[in-house]
Amino acid sequence: MFKSVVVIGSGNVGHHLGLHLVDSGLDVLQVYSRTEAKAQPLAGLIKTTYTTNLEQINPTADLYLLAVSDSAIAEVAKALSFSSTLSPLVVHCSGATPQTVLSEQFERFGVFYPLQTFTKERVVDFKQIPICIDANTVDDLKLLEHLAMQMGCPVYPINDEQRAVLHLAAVFVNNFANHLFHIGEQILSKDQLPFDLLRPLIQETATKVMQASPAERQTGPAIRGDQVTIQRHLQALETWPIYREVYELFTKSIQKS
Amino acid sequence: MFKSVVVIGSGNVGHHLGLHLVDSGLDVLQVYSRTEAKAQPLAGLIKTTYTTNLEQINPTADLYLLAVSDSAIAEVAKALSFSSTLSPLVVHCSGATPQTVLSEQFERFGVFYPLQTFTKERVVDFKQIPICIDANTVDDLKLLEHLAMQMGCPVYPINDEQRAVLHLAAVFVNNFANHLFHIGEQILSKDQLPFDLLRPLIQETATKVMQASPAERQTGPAIRGDQVTIQRHLQALETWPIYREVYELFTKSIQKS
Repeated sequence: MFKSVVVIGSGNVGHHLGLHLVDSGLDVLQVYSRTEAKAQPLAGLIKTTYTTNLEQINPTADLYLLAVSDSAIAEVAKALSFSSTLSPLVVHCSGATPQTVLSEQFERFGVFYPLQTFTKERVVDFKQIPICIDANTVDDLKLLEHLAMQMGCPVYPINDEQRAVLHLAAVFVNNFANHLFHIGEQILSKDQLPFDLLRPLIQETATKVMQASPAERQTGPAIRGDQVTIQRHLQALETWPIYREVYELFTKSIQKS
Repeated sequence: MFKSVVVIGSGNVGHHLGLHLVDSGLDVLQVYSRTEAKAQPLAGLIKTTYTTNLEQINPTADLYLLAVSDSAIAEVAKALSFSSTLSPLVVHCSGATPQTVLSEQFERFGVFYPLQTFTKERVVDFKQIPICIDANTVDDLKLLEHLAMQMGCPVYPINDEQRAVLHLAAVFVNNFANHLFHIGEQILSKDQLPFDLLRPLIQETATKVMQASPAERQTGPAIRGDQVTIQRHLQALETWPIYREVYELFTKSIQKS
């Protein structure tokens, strides 16, 4: 069982993990961020110390959580140096990076990837956050599983290849879905219609697939083969060539499915 | 104020409107559907009569709600015949059809379009359903506004042109978003990963735009310009040419926005 943790990175993921680790009874020894402006608020919230210097990371923790951007993981890992007698577990929190990026620097390494989108201002319900874990030993995998359970999260052992697949799927259902919402907002704003009109529909579209499979929930002109409506929509999109392309491609893809 | 209504059509929209009209104190005189198998269950639920013959529609109601498919509206309207002394209001419930489709047959006509996706098995919260109304007279527009308010719904006067725009935007945020969820499910299933892993992310993606604008909430490799991840994802999509096209188009569209 882990008792003490150092959280490296205080972006959206580091912020929420840091807060929830403390809420779950862990001792967060220290917070790191490149800038004081980001490190200090989080350290203040969870009443711990902070540093902006990777060489001054507290070396006595059981677990090091690297909640930094994908491009920074390798670099931060290289800069961390623990005395050889201490061999803590070092994990990153990314969906897109293999765990092996940590294998050169550390004896014990792994992944602790919360599959969720975080925003600092929004409260998140950790009971709803699947944690995807991986580690280079079975013992450490068990420790990470226990930690996720202690945090109240559903937990899944997921290897590098599976995590890459998950991350790709997450881009479709999160980033791309949000872009569709943005397109909807744009289309309405041209006619000065408020986005509020679409919000309940967006919420229900998501809620509908909480129990059912999206395949069973597909509706609309494409799946009905309603050519009259499809043609009318394509015409309305003439001023937005790229949204028209999206419309055509989705209509084709839905009809193929 | 309307007292009595006839609901024509017992699909998802007719079903939920029928139930909620009764809950809101309206007298649903009759339900129509082409088949007894569909008309009878709804009539049973709201304890009223039904018919499968348009010529036997009860002519004494204040309001006739046409909750039938777009392609059937004109045809059903033609088949309805009221005695000349009675002049009830006839509205359809569609986002995609102009109200003028009703102008030949009826003196008083309009639209009562609930902007939501309905499934029979799912309870819907009418307080969350924007009703888009239109009518050929100001008096009838006021009557429809009052009805929507009586049903506890937010109500918006929306003309034919605006409603067409709304319906187009709804296709993007509902039908196309659901297709993205379907793509996510497909991608996971190839590696035997459960869709449950994505469900909390889908829910949060929708909930995030309930307060904020989707433009402010865009994240992911496309907007970060993270070429390493984008290339890795495109490679992983080689077995799905059409999903690869979707990925490329969204990446381009997000970067353009």
